[in-house]
Amino acid sequence: MRKNRLSASAYVSGVLAGDRVVLSRAITLIESTLQKDRLLAEQVMQEILPHSGRSLRVGITGVPGVGKSTFIERFGMQLIEQGYKVAVLAVDPSSQQTGGSILGDKTRMERLSQDKRAYIRPSPSGSTLGGVSARTREAMLLCEAAGFDVILIETVGVGQSEIAVKGMVDFFLLLMLAGAGDELQGIKKGIIEICDALIINKADGENAALAKRARRTYANALHLFPPKENGWIPEVSTCSGLSGDGLEAIWEMVLRFERHTRANGTFERQRALQRKTWMREHISYLLLQAFYDNPLIRGQLADVESDVAAGTVSAIATARALVERFREAKNEPEKPA
Amino acid sequence: MRKNRLSASAYVSGVLAGDRVVLSRAITLIESTLQKDRLLAEQVMQEILPHSGRSLRVGITGVPGVGKSTFIERFGMQLIEQGYKVAVLAVDPSSQQTGGSILGDKTRMERLSQDKRAYIRPSPSGSTLGGVSARTREAMLLCEAAGFDVILIETVGVGQSEIAVKGMVDFFLLLMLAGAGDELQGIKKGIIEICDALIINKADGENAALAKRARRTYANALHLFPPKENGWIPEVSTCSGLSGDGLEAIWEMVLRFERHTRANGTFERQRALQRKTWMREHISYLLLQAFYDNPLIRGQLADVESDVAAGTVSAIATARALVERFREAKNEPEKPA
Repeated sequence: MRKNRLSASAYVSGVLAGDRVVLSRAITLIESTLQKDRLLAEQVMQEILPHSGRSLRVGITGVPGVGKSTFIERFGMQLIEQGYKVAVLAVDPSSQQTGGSILGDKTRMERLSQDKRAYIRPSPSGSTLGGVSARTREAMLLCEAAGFDVILIETVGVGQSEIAVKGMVDFFLLLMLAGAGDELQGIKKGIIEICDALIINKADGENAALAKRARRTYANALHLFPPKENGWIPEVSTCSGLSGDGLEAIWEMVLRFERHTRANGTFERQRALQRKTWMREHISYLLLQAFYDNPLIRGQLADVESDVAAGTVSAIATARALVERFREAKNEPEKPA
Repeated sequence: MRKNRLSASAYVSGVLAGDRVVLSRAITLIESTLQKDRLLAEQVMQEILPHSGRSLRVGITGVPGVGKSTFIERFGMQLIEQGYKVAVLAVDPSSQQTGGSILGDKTRMERLSQDKRAYIRPSPSGSTLGGVSARTREAMLLCEAAGFDVILIETVGVGQSEIAVKGMVDFFLLLMLAGAGDELQGIKKGIIEICDALIINKADGENAALAKRARRTYANALHLFPPKENGWIPEVSTCSGLSGDGLEAIWEMVLRFERHTRANGTFERQRALQRKTWMREHISYLLLQAFYDNPLIRGQLADVESDVAAGTVSAIATARALVERFREAKNEPEKPA
């Protein structure tokens, strides 16, 4: 199954030269779960690290049907025409179960995917959000090293994945629709608290007046939230991914946000915090992976868990016994059963 | 510092006899973080386990100022007068930082705290929600073994702690206030999705009409949420913790919920799932605790973390190196530095 790998220096020089084929192969490498690939990937990541970080990272979320793909297609084309190089990534932990990602799908961003100044990569597959988001973060750094200066990270509005994307971007944008019940689209998930802008999409045709009214409602509502630490007050605007109306103003807002947070130091502070959090999250991920992949634990987990579920043994005591067994297991690898 | 401990069997027989002094000492035991106490506590928990589970567990949340203490005082007194034995516990992970819990405070529930048919215990102190909620769960089982048949678990509306409380109760109740901006009190936290009832408190005096209107608004809004797996449609009602109006109807609703979910099997299924989740959460907690308490890790974490924050080394590779060092550490305990 394992494809031919390049050497670490070949990956690094290819990525730094902006070679799209090597970039794609490097991302494939970091998506691999083979231990051998992981070590090579870490070497590559360590070497490209000094060349990463020089992009604006923008997260985009919204419920299915809100028009994310059309928005990104238009928004991305506009940025390209302004001289930016744009990479589109996605975080979709459900992509494995549903048999392939629907996010970052090239067929849904026809013009953008055919343009050499853009790079689109679908969500890595994987059942755990921790794994998927770690790989997306690494892909983001690779794209930056390859010279992409705007990274758009798309996710579907289903709760935890937005938190993951918020943890890797500079600016987080929530797309919404005007209309009945829409107050619940984002607010119910607690997204409004973490977004830097709330964009009412599909503000075109008959919908335009409705969108304007929704804009006022949300703008009023946002004032009820406590101010953010970075001093930025989330803005509400309308746009049409279809016609392109409002997209320029959105990019100007992102640049205004960047100036504001760079000036007060919170831009870099947020990135430093994100890196630390990323390390801590990966520590949790690796510890749990080592635990649940351990043959000793795998052999008894199902039985033990059904006893706990039935209430015949204590959850706490059982957890402690399992963790102790796991930690001792390393001490006696040769011991026969 | 360590107070005299009883024997495991003395704790168990005291708790089962409903001895409040022994119950308090048993809860103090399970709140201890000393390794020796933990082992004794687990022995006690294992023995009382068959005698636990025979209560209705009700979670109560709401933003500060919503009137939780007054509500619980009145609601608890009403239950006692109906013949129930009521225990009040609290989950407040911030209680350590703020120098003592403000939740479950006896001075704020004057009548209830002086009644022999009630038992009030403030939130255990602790900086991690995992630790605080594990101890509250164990306290809950001890109270059940001591004969309390309604457990009220209070928490403040700050996000994660509600999720923790939801994971240990049968019925979850959100208190709200009618008035400007109140749409955001709960919805913004995603609480409405996890609550079984939404109660508009302080529906008295001039506020009564406002509360009635809010009730209709929320009842309409709740219909927009997808139906829950247990088939229960969250109900909205008004009450006055001050006058006691509406409290009887709330308890009738809780009992109706119990009948409904016991009949379709989801009551016991939810408890089984909670026990399994509890074990998994405790596994994560113990693994992370072992990692961050490890002297080798403690010795280098701060340095390594500031390198990661500065962006000079990779978060992923650093995490892996630390976890590997942690796992190998057990293999060479005697090796000199």
